[in-house]
Amino acid sequence: MRQQILVDMDGVLADVYAQLIIFEHRDSGIKLNIENMYGKTELEAFPSFEKHVRSKGFFRTAPLIPGSIEGLKYLNEKYNVLIVSSATEFPQSLNEKEEWLSEHFPFITWEQMIFCGRKDSIRGNIMIDDHPKNLSTFDGERYLFAQPHNMCVPDRNYHRVSGWQDIIRLL
Amino acid sequence: MRQQILVDMDGVLADVYAQLIIFEHRDSGIKLNIENMYGKTELEAFPSFEKHVRSKGFFRTAPLIPGSIEGLKYLNEKYNVLIVSSATEFPQSLNEKEEWLSEHFPFITWEQMIFCGRKDSIRGNIMIDDHPKNLSTFDGERYLFAQPHNMCVPDRNYHRVSGWQDIIRLL
Repeated sequence: MRQQILVDMDGVLADVYAQLIIFEHRDSGIKLNIENMYGKTELEAFPSFEKHVRSKGFFRTAPLIPGSIEGLKYLNEKYNVLIVSSATEFPQSLNEKEEWLSEHFPFITWEQMIFCGRKDSIRGNIMIDDHPKNLSTFDGERYLFAQPHNMCVPDRNYHRVSGWQDIIRLL
Repeated sequence: MRQQILVDMDGVLADVYAQLIIFEHRDSGIKLNIENMYGKTELEAFPSFEKHVRSKGFFRTAPLIPGSIEGLKYLNEKYNVLIVSSATEFPQSLNEKEEWLSEHFPFITWEQMIFCGRKDSIRGNIMIDDHPKNLSTFDGERYLFAQPHNMCVPDRNYHRVSGWQDIIRLL
């Protein structure tokens, strides 16, 4: 039987930092620099975080993380893939996330999508996520997808991956 | 630690049969009779099932199953409740279901909501659902919520409940 792998959306498939930088620039004219965000939470890095992620179109038009299409295709041929995304905190994101996923990853079926609040009741063998809070309650293999907010998180409990090329190499 | 209970939406909280009868009457003038539907699947009972459930507003304006508000409030005080709803097959239902749930059950937080395709990867101790296909892969206690389509399903693998008064009595 294939192993089941839980793949996060924001910060793993969708480039939320790039989108936050675009929205900040659009709204205030300020060009934020990603190097200044290492080790800060998303809320610390983006004072208007809440406003942006609740804006219409934020999730629908998010740029892709480089290599995510090929990478997810690779996983989907080898594993039982479930896309598990925190979405109910920002309810308008639900339809936007489903549409975005179906547009960019048409090989992912509706049966492979889970939109939730917390991820600690979803079963799997492997989890890829950029948030330690999601990985910490997971009892399988844990892959921490590098993002500025998790740069200072110690790696002892996770396999840290710097991008999709790492995932393909390791999995 | 509290036991975790997975509660289905359609057919347990939302009265999908009542809504299908309303939509059928609105569209074709035909008044369908629920007694003629016993033992038939929803697709057999409602020839326009697919059209109705994909209609704007179908889930947003669904009537409540009698006793569901008091019943869910009762469970929510005693158990760790997760609302687990099949939604991604009909993507427009995602936002409608979240809004409907938040309107009628404001004591359910965003952290307690899961919208998915299949339910076989959601962990819990108890599951309440009207579809045997969801209960059959669940490894905890299984409660089959009576609906016309499951009238002929044998009860040997499930506790059959005829409504929310039964749930409150048994759980």
